[in-house]
Amino acid sequence: MAETRAKIAVDAMGGDNAPQEIVAGAIRASAELDVDILLVGDPEAIQAQLDHHGCTSTNIEIVAADGVVSMEEEALVGVRRKPNASINVAMGLVRENRAQAVVSAGHSGAAMAAALLGLGRLKGIDRPAIGAVFPTMYANKSVIVLDVGANVDSKPKYLEQFALMGTVYSKYVLGVEDPKVGLINIGEESSKGNELAKETYKLLSENPKIPFIGNAEGRDVLSGNFDVIVCDGFVGNVLLKFAEAVGEIMLQIIKEELPYGVRGKIGTGILKPNLRRIKQRIDHAEHGGALLFGVNGVCIISHGSSQAPSIFSAIRIAKEAVDNQVLDRIRNFQGEKSVSNEQLGITN
Amino acid sequence: MAETRAKIAVDAMGGDNAPQEIVAGAIRASAELDVDILLVGDPEAIQAQLDHHGCTSTNIEIVAADGVVSMEEEALVGVRRKPNASINVAMGLVRENRAQAVVSAGHSGAAMAAALLGLGRLKGIDRPAIGAVFPTMYANKSVIVLDVGANVDSKPKYLEQFALMGTVYSKYVLGVEDPKVGLINIGEESSKGNELAKETYKLLSENPKIPFIGNAEGRDVLSGNFDVIVCDGFVGNVLLKFAEAVGEIMLQIIKEELPYGVRGKIGTGILKPNLRRIKQRIDHAEHGGALLFGVNGVCIISHGSSQAPSIFSAIRIAKEAVDNQVLDRIRNFQGEKSVSNEQLGITN
Repeated sequence: MAETRAKIAVDAMGGDNAPQEIVAGAIRASAELDVDILLVGDPEAIQAQLDHHGCTSTNIEIVAADGVVSMEEEALVGVRRKPNASINVAMGLVRENRAQAVVSAGHSGAAMAAALLGLGRLKGIDRPAIGAVFPTMYANKSVIVLDVGANVDSKPKYLEQFALMGTVYSKYVLGVEDPKVGLINIGEESSKGNELAKETYKLLSENPKIPFIGNAEGRDVLSGNFDVIVCDGFVGNVLLKFAEAVGEIMLQIIKEELPYGVRGKIGTGILKPNLRRIKQRIDHAEHGGALLFGVNGVCIISHGSSQAPSIFSAIRIAKEAVDNQVLDRIRNFQGEKSVSNEQLGITN
Repeated sequence: MAETRAKIAVDAMGGDNAPQEIVAGAIRASAELDVDILLVGDPEAIQAQLDHHGCTSTNIEIVAADGVVSMEEEALVGVRRKPNASINVAMGLVRENRAQAVVSAGHSGAAMAAALLGLGRLKGIDRPAIGAVFPTMYANKSVIVLDVGANVDSKPKYLEQFALMGTVYSKYVLGVEDPKVGLINIGEESSKGNELAKETYKLLSENPKIPFIGNAEGRDVLSGNFDVIVCDGFVGNVLLKFAEAVGEIMLQIIKEELPYGVRGKIGTGILKPNLRRIKQRIDHAEHGGALLFGVNGVCIISHGSSQAPSIFSAIRIAKEAVDNQVLDRIRNFQGEKSVSNEQLGITN
């Protein structure tokens, strides 16, 4: 679908396991995916990791940056104070059209601030949103939930915009022909919920571009009945972090209880491959990163604890978003004239 | 601990499986727990179920009621229109001191409305809260989360009151010596979150009666690091319903993936008893009901889909709350003079 090969700027210095795991994930992506990668950060540290893996790929280029916005810093302050920090340099590459997307496992608030300052918002979008793809109870079906933490006090029209962006993503990136949109609420009826939910219900119902099918209760998130679920970033963030932890806890309970006793040990030994399949379906690490919607560029925000497989997944998600022209489609979907990929980032 | 044997009014007509599963759960409770039970509802229908089980227990008494507030009715309207509905009659038994607690699997909004109208609020409590006990990653440790749906737009002082009531429950009913209280939020720092969270953080920090240890992110809910977690009823309701569904989905994934292939079938056969242990730790049905805090009586709200085991658990929870004098302790904890159990309900 893409006319040109996607070029992804990867913040090599962001995250608990940077640069080693970030570089390792990027190397794998450069080998397995049809992408070019710009590793942004301290050239020596990055080169040392490339050497460590014996990597001489021509798909990988190093772009020098100076410093990193640390987890301890207040996001906006750090981003402003360190114009040459890896996250700022990565955003600059997109702004200057040297890359189409950014992947970062660093300070997520800093990534958002750097994206807003460096790339600006998409026209018609008041607030960016972070969208996370959750697995559902069906092995091959996922649901995108947004916002999972970009905003803590949302207005109905923000949620309406999130619904629009989520619909585009579901349709063109996740490949859902007729996405079904839901609104997180505490009951099915339109009269349920807090003021935000009630007013948003109205906006979603009245917007002909949004395939809104009604409220989604907590139990519906993973049911597979919805493809896009919108909520306030506070609720979404609590839900996302809860869901991630639940997966880990379930795996631990299985690990504790399954090998109990002699029969348990025998049975568990026999079941090793199947347990791996369960782990894959439950484990969030397999799912990679969240997308920052609403800014003038594709940005994937990975978990701070990301290891190489998550970085690989994040780069794959970034590539899919670029290849499927998600930004253009959001613009078009809102009724604006189409903007070519080449123009991205320079409109700001 | 209790001076007198707890007497529990059970709404025999409320819930998807009423009266059969309700009566079945009550019969088991009357046999296994040291309680007296008043089954409230249509005498003929209840008697038919008692006969069906060959139950002639002297611990069970039928109290006639006329009609039920159905799930389709607007809670307050239904409760007002049907003064003789089972939920109203059950609350009346507590008000008249003929019972100390109510258990209902019917319309939860109706149960709340009937409790507020029939019993009134505890002094010093502005809003009731529904508290749900979640399992944690440790087999023998649970956490009480409140509010999970009584209120959709909370104020900081409501959450402060919820924290007080949760602390008492954790200490005196769940038996946690030094309960640790947390506030649901999207980050650990006091500066994080929406306005509600930031202001509540301040109130909780400053209240010497609340053993507040800080913010609890989504991932902390099941970590076992907190004994009491307070949140707005909107967030709590989404979380509770999500958690319930996750448990079911996890069990289904295990059921689907574990017996895959020949090895899978053999291994799964061997592991049957261990799988049952996993189910028990995950399954919410084992956990019973939620407590309605802040009204002048002990009320347990069970899931609409409750089967006999959940009703049994709910009665057990009610008995524990009564035996441990949770209402008196909440009153005392707030600095009021003690009120004897006998006086409960007539203060309103």
